[in-house]
Order: sequence, then C-alpha cells, then structure tokens
Amino acid sequence: MSYETYFQNNREKHLAELKEWLAIPSISALSEHKPDMVKAAQWLVDKIKQAGLEHVELHETKGHPIITADYLHAPGKPTVLVYGHYDVQPVDPLNLWVTPPFEPDIRDGKLYARGSTDDKGQLFLHIKALEAIIKEEGTLPVNIKLCVEGEEEISSANLPGFLEANKEKLAADAILISDTSLLEKGKPAISTGLRGLCALELHVDTANTDLHSGTYGGGVPNALHAIVSLLASLHDDKGRVTVEGFYDGVPDISPLMKEEFQKLNLNEEQLRESLGLEQLYGEEGFTFVERTGARPTLELNGVYGGFQGEGSKTVIPKEAHAKITCRLVGNQDPAAVLENIKRHLHSHIQPGAKLTIKDGEKARAFNIDPSHRMLQLAADAYEDVYGVRALFTKDGGSIPIVETFSRVLGAPAVLMGFGLPDENLHAPNEHFNLENFDKGLLTIVSYLKRI
Amino acid sequence: MSYETYFQNNREKHLAELKEWLAIPSISALSEHKPDMVKAAQWLVDKIKQAGLEHVELHETKGHPIITADYLHAPGKPTVLVYGHYDVQPVDPLNLWVTPPFEPDIRDGKLYARGSTDDKGQLFLHIKALEAIIKEEGTLPVNIKLCVEGEEEISSANLPGFLEANKEKLAADAILISDTSLLEKGKPAISTGLRGLCALELHVDTANTDLHSGTYGGGVPNALHAIVSLLASLHDDKGRVTVEGFYDGVPDISPLMKEEFQKLNLNEEQLRESLGLEQLYGEEGFTFVERTGARPTLELNGVYGGFQGEGSKTVIPKEAHAKITCRLVGNQDPAAVLENIKRHLHSHIQPGAKLTIKDGEKARAFNIDPSHRMLQLAADAYEDVYGVRALFTKDGGSIPIVETFSRVLGAPAVLMGFGLPDENLHAPNEHFNLENFDKGLLTIVSYLKRI
Repeated sequence: MSYETYFQNNREKHLAELKEWLAIPSISALSEHKPDMVKAAQWLVDKIKQAGLEHVELHETKGHPIITADYLHAPGKPTVLVYGHYDVQPVDPLNLWVTPPFEPDIRDGKLYARGSTDDKGQLFLHIKALEAIIKEEGTLPVNIKLCVEGEEEISSANLPGFLEANKEKLAADAILISDTSLLEKGKPAISTGLRGLCALELHVDTANTDLHSGTYGGGVPNALHAIVSLLASLHDDKGRVTVEGFYDGVPDISPLMKEEFQKLNLNEEQLRESLGLEQLYGEEGFTFVERTGARPTLELNGVYGGFQGEGSKTVIPKEAHAKITCRLVGNQDPAAVLENIKRHLHSHIQPGAKLTIKDGEKARAFNIDPSHRMLQLAADAYEDVYGVRALFTKDGGSIPIVETFSRVLGAPAVLMGFGLPDENLHAPNEHFNLENFDKGLLTIVSYLKRI
Repeated sequence: MSYETYFQNNREKHLAELKEWLAIPSISALSEHKPDMVKAAQWLVDKIKQAGLEHVELHETKGHPIITADYLHAPGKPTVLVYGHYDVQPVDPLNLWVTPPFEPDIRDGKLYARGSTDDKGQLFLHIKALEAIIKEEGTLPVNIKLCVEGEEEISSANLPGFLEANKEKLAADAILISDTSLLEKGKPAISTGLRGLCALELHVDTANTDLHSGTYGGGVPNALHAIVSLLASLHDDKGRVTVEGFYDGVPDISPLMKEEFQKLNLNEEQLRESLGLEQLYGEEGFTFVERTGARPTLELNGVYGGFQGEGSKTVIPKEAHAKITCRLVGNQDPAAVLENIKRHLHSHIQPGAKLTIKDGEKARAFNIDPSHRMLQLAADAYEDVYGVRALFTKDGGSIPIVETFSRVLGAPAVLMGFGLPDENLHAPNEHFNLENFDKGLLTIVSYLKRI
C-alpha cells in the first residue's frame, strides 16, 4: 500500500488522536497546569510506544519531564535525532478565541487549538510517520532517536543540562525539528537561521500606596509616567533600538543575503492587508524580510499598571510593570544585551521612581550553511511531496534549544517546518492547516528514506 | 445634656450604623453594583427619616438615585443645603487591603472601609448632628435642605440637570459640604478652591490579531510601543505638560497666594517620608503646595496591554489602552483642554497605529472668597471644637458638582471637611480617623447654631 493510501486510511484516527492530545492544556508557563504537563507527557509516551519505538523513557527534571526513545536497527546508516516540544503558550486574551483553545475544532480544513501548529501538531507528524514506516516495512531506513521536552515556551531551562549529561546517548548525524513554517501555502522553506532571544521583566515602584490624584496629583511621581517615558526611551522615531551597544555583533546584510531575501519575493502589501494593518512598521532602511530575518528587535510584550476596570478612577498608581523580549541575530551575546538594556533602564528612570529588573531566558542566534547534505536532502523531500524545492530562509523566531543541540551534539539541525506564518501561533485562534498535516507526513517519510 | 455627652452616649450605636452602611458596596462606576447603589440609597433614606427630617424623597435618575429632604421650621433664618454622596470608588487592587473594603474594621482609632472618609463617613456626621439637635432641642436653629447623590465618583452626570429643574426647591443661602480634609491632625482647613477635572480613555489598535514576536517582530507596529511613546510625549522632562494650549486660563500664582501657601508651612520632607517616596516630583519651579493647589495636571490613571500573567510571552500585542484624568485650575475650560489633548494625541500617534479616544467627565475649577460670612462662621465653629481656627486653603481635588451647585443656586459653598490627607481615599485601606468623627459632629452642631 502506498504511504498516501496508508495516511488517507488512517486520517480520521490520527486526527482524533491529535485532538485528544491538544485537549490537554499543557501550558508550561503557568504553575497551575503542572498536572496537565505530566498528563500530556504521559499521553505522548504511550503514543511513542504504540508507534513501535524502543527504550521509551520519561525523565523527571526540576521543571517538566523530558521524553527520550530510540529505534536503532539500521547499522551503517546515519542517525537522526527528532526533537519537538509538548508544551504550549498561555492562551489569553481568551475572549478572542472563536472556539476554546483546548477544545480542538476543525473548520475549513484547519485544526484550531492551542498547540495545533506550535508544536504538538508538528511533532505528532513524526510519531505517525515513524509508525507508518515500521508498520509498512517492518523497520526504519535510518537509526532514529527522539528527544521531546516540555519547556520550550519557557526557555528550555533543563534541556541543555540534560543534553550535556546524555551526549553519548543522544549522539546523532542530524537533528530533525518541525517547529517552523512554510514560506506560504505550497511554498516549503528550510530555515538556516533562527534569531536568539533574551527576556526581562521590569517593575517600577513609587509611593507606598496608590494615591488620590486630587490631593497629590502634580506633586508626586506617578509609576505610569515613569514607566512610559522609560519604555519610550528604548526606541528612536526611526524604529531603531537606542540602547548603547545593542547592535554589537549584528552582521551587516551581505549582498548575497540581500539577494536571497529578494528571492523570497514577499508581497508586503498583501501581508499588510492580511494582518489588518494600516502599514508595516520597523527599523528605517530595511525591508520586512530583512527586519524579521536579519535584524534584532526589542519588543514590549506586556505593560500594565493602575486602573483597568470600567469607567475612570482618579488614582496615581504606586507601581507599574513591563515584560520585554529581544530577538537577536549574528553574534549578539544575550547576556551582554541584557546588561546593556539594564544599564540603559537604570540611567533613564525618572527621579523618584524605583526600578527593579528580573532577567528571563537567554539564547544565542543559530545559523547553518544551506549546502550541507542533510539540508539538501530535506529540500529534495519537500520537492517529492510539494512539487517545489524548499527555499532556504532565515527565520525571525527563536527555538533557543536549536543552537544548543547543534553545539552540544556537534550535528546540523534540519528545520523542516510544516506550519504557515499566519497560523496565529502564540495568539488567539492558533490553527494548523490540514493540507500540511497530510503533506508533512509524506515529506518526513520521503526524507528518512532518502537519507 | 451637652452635645459632648449626647454623642459620647450614642457613639457605639452611631458607629455600628455607619459600619452597616459602609458594608454596602456602592461602587457607582461598576454596573454590577447597581443593586447595591439602590440598597445604599434606601438605607440612607431610612436614616434621614429617623433623624427627623421631612419630605424625604428618593428621585430616580438615568443613573443612580438622588435623595432630597428638608426641615424648614426657622422662619427668617438662613437656609443651609447639605450635600454629600453615597457612592464610593472601585477597590482594586484588592490584594493590598489589610481587611476587606466592605467589611468595616476599627483599628487604632481608625475606621477602615471603602467610603469611610469619602464620603459616607463624612455625610453620616451631618445626619447624626441634625438628629442630635432635633432630639435635644425639638427643632433646628436654621432651615435645612438635604441633597445627596450617588454619582460623585463618576462625574455627577445627572445632578446638574436635577439642580436646574429644582432650583426653587433647593434654593439656599449656603451649600454645606463635608468631602474634604483637615490640613493635618488637629489643623482644620476650609477649602476655598477645588481643581476642575477632565477625563479621557484612549485605545490603540494595530493588527487584527496578536502576533508572534519571532515571525513578525521588528516588521509590524506593536500597540504597546505606540502607546508608551504617545503617552511619554505628554510631559517634558521638567514635569510640564507638553500639550499645546494646555495652560490657557491658568492664572499666575500671585504674591498674596504664594504667601497663603507659605503659611501652610508644609513639611515636604515629612510628607515624602510618610508616602515612602525617594523624592517628591512635579513641575519644575513650584513647591508641592503650589503644584497641587494652583497648577493643573495630566495624570495617567491606568495603562495596559499585552501579557500580564506569570512568566514571559513572546507576543506583539494588537491593542493597548490608557486612562487619563487632568486636574484643572483658574479659568481652564475642560472642553478646550480635552480638545487640545486629543489634537496632541492624534498628531503624535506612531505610523501604523490606530487611535480611538473616548471623552469622560468635565468640570471647571471652583473658587470662593474666604472673607464671606458663611466661611468665617465655619472657621469659628472649627475653633470652638478644635481649639484652632481653620485655615483657608486651595484643595487639589475636584468635587465637580461644587462649582455647578454654587453657580446654579447662586450660593457660596462651604467646604467643611473632616478627613485627613493620608486616609487613602481612592486607594486600598481607606479609613476615617474617629477623632474627627467625634469632633466633626460637634463642629457641625456649633456651625448650625452660630449661623
């Protein structure tokens, strides 16, 4: 039976299984979901065993469990380590979801649920592709190792140590990861670069209590005034980050890279319209693809303080808060970037306001040469299924662990993504296009057979 | 029996009654408390009747009910109209209250509850003072009218119309209001000026959904970036409001006024310390008393957008929100100020961000000449009880209706407050010092007898 037929025959069953997994709210960032994390991990362990993989182990960590497994019956053949994550992002604002984030729903050929594309849905493809080959051919054409974590959305705190401690056990010739996107429908892409990341939270405190704006207004510091002027100081009016030293280690965009970017032929006007934007916006002098692919950013992810209820309240808030993440490129050092931002913040805080800063995750950017054989074979596999060869791109997102994996195991990372850029990952109404669910299964099978 | 003895004998009973009233969460700003508003109004109607006042009426409005009553048995004597409000401010952040806001609690001679000082506690003094005189002397020494509303904290939307429609019925020689503060413990003050007010809410929208900061970061507008730079543009680094025309109608501080302010002899260092501040802060070139008494302000009362939960979330928020109120002085026209702010905001919004602005309440500043007989008698009454004559001050707060009352009824407003500036009005742990509860009752009796 052809794999097309096999996957067609099993489609309903596979989707029902995936929906079951997506219904478990495995939000790694929120401690109240700890039991759901265990449940989601255990669900996956069972499916990996069912698929026919061996040595399936669930490793406890200080955070959420890591799962490993293998199938090593192709002596002399390369070993591929498949990585993915079973944790998902928080879901607020909940009111913007058309159907609840943990009640998976298929509409117009798309599967809606938190985690559907990032990354349960994509990881699920690998389990089912491996199961299919084992069932159809009795064995796998390559050696396979599996390493799945539950902390990708919260900086993979425990995976680097686990990798170091299990270097031999996890040794591989390539690391295969499906946690990225096609360029657009029908246009596969292999990312040869991921931006790095660093995160911080800041807290501004003024008085020991909220104050009445009549009695005190104009005479005392207002935590909100202090935080907005502080945060506004982080960018100039050309969209450039003003933090001293922020751009250290950022490479110029080479003529070759510029050419690669132009090949992508992104329609900015179409993108603008699809996002409902009046206009795109960013650092002056760069295109959208350059801004997201080759330039670092400093983004405010959350700002809050004072009264948020209905109506008005004449209060001078005593505290205000902000959450910031940066995307890093080239040789930017996340630790140095954090230090520079902290120095900037401390030197720009308004008199009378106290500033506290808490560091978050840190990850370096990742880059790989597209001429590597394992990447070229991946492009071929896409061509088998999609009819067009994958383009090699730079991805704006971060999978902090990719750089670590690649460095610790000394192997190339193959970012074979099956999402689409507009699938609302990290946002309300996250979904996964089932066209790529179907094609993803076939592409993985083709890749493993080609190696 | 002396009034001291009378109030001493009834103290427990009076406090128990007041606690009963404070336990009703009459938050006018939140629609879910509509039934509590009715309950709090009805409770007051009953107490006014018990006190012996006549023609007690509850008037329905488009918002919350207005209560009127009178006692007109002193022919040839002046008529005093007592005003107060039974609505209270919202209570968040709830976690900062030591005891719940609607479970009144007496600690260290202070009554803790939302509304204890603003304004239920102070209004209650008038009801009990009137009741005492009627009980002790069989009648009142002046004619009394009562007008109590439930919308003071939300701009008194319906009272001005009510006043216009009932001009004759409410005609009086003075309007007596206890909704302000002593200068400090043992130092009574009569406010001869209140700042005006205008309010607005603003909403910034960018994309049609929250976006992933990896895929889009650096290439699309971020609603939070847009709002912080917009809000930061409202002040310069000398604490001055940068909105063109904002200071139109603001009088210079005259040498006489400067002298009055100096007489207050405010200890700025002590104030700073009591508020837990590193330093006071405000418009350069003015003292704290000048800033809050004679200068206008533009305050951010709330700002929010994006992720507020535990941990981090790499999201580009699609919307951000802010609430602003201004305190106005002299001849500043609230409508013109609002227009000027709106013009400023629309001309400073970042490209790619959409701005929506919603107007809130508007009120002019109020000023009265301290040499007026009704004010001088009030200062005498304070002296009878506190042993020191009240100082005439300018108050930073706004009671929007005072200017309207005074204008529509053509009578002086006597702001005979019994609160203290540090009683956390509009903030967690609002309280009322019982020393001023006791002295307030006696001061009101003395005032009415002196007229």
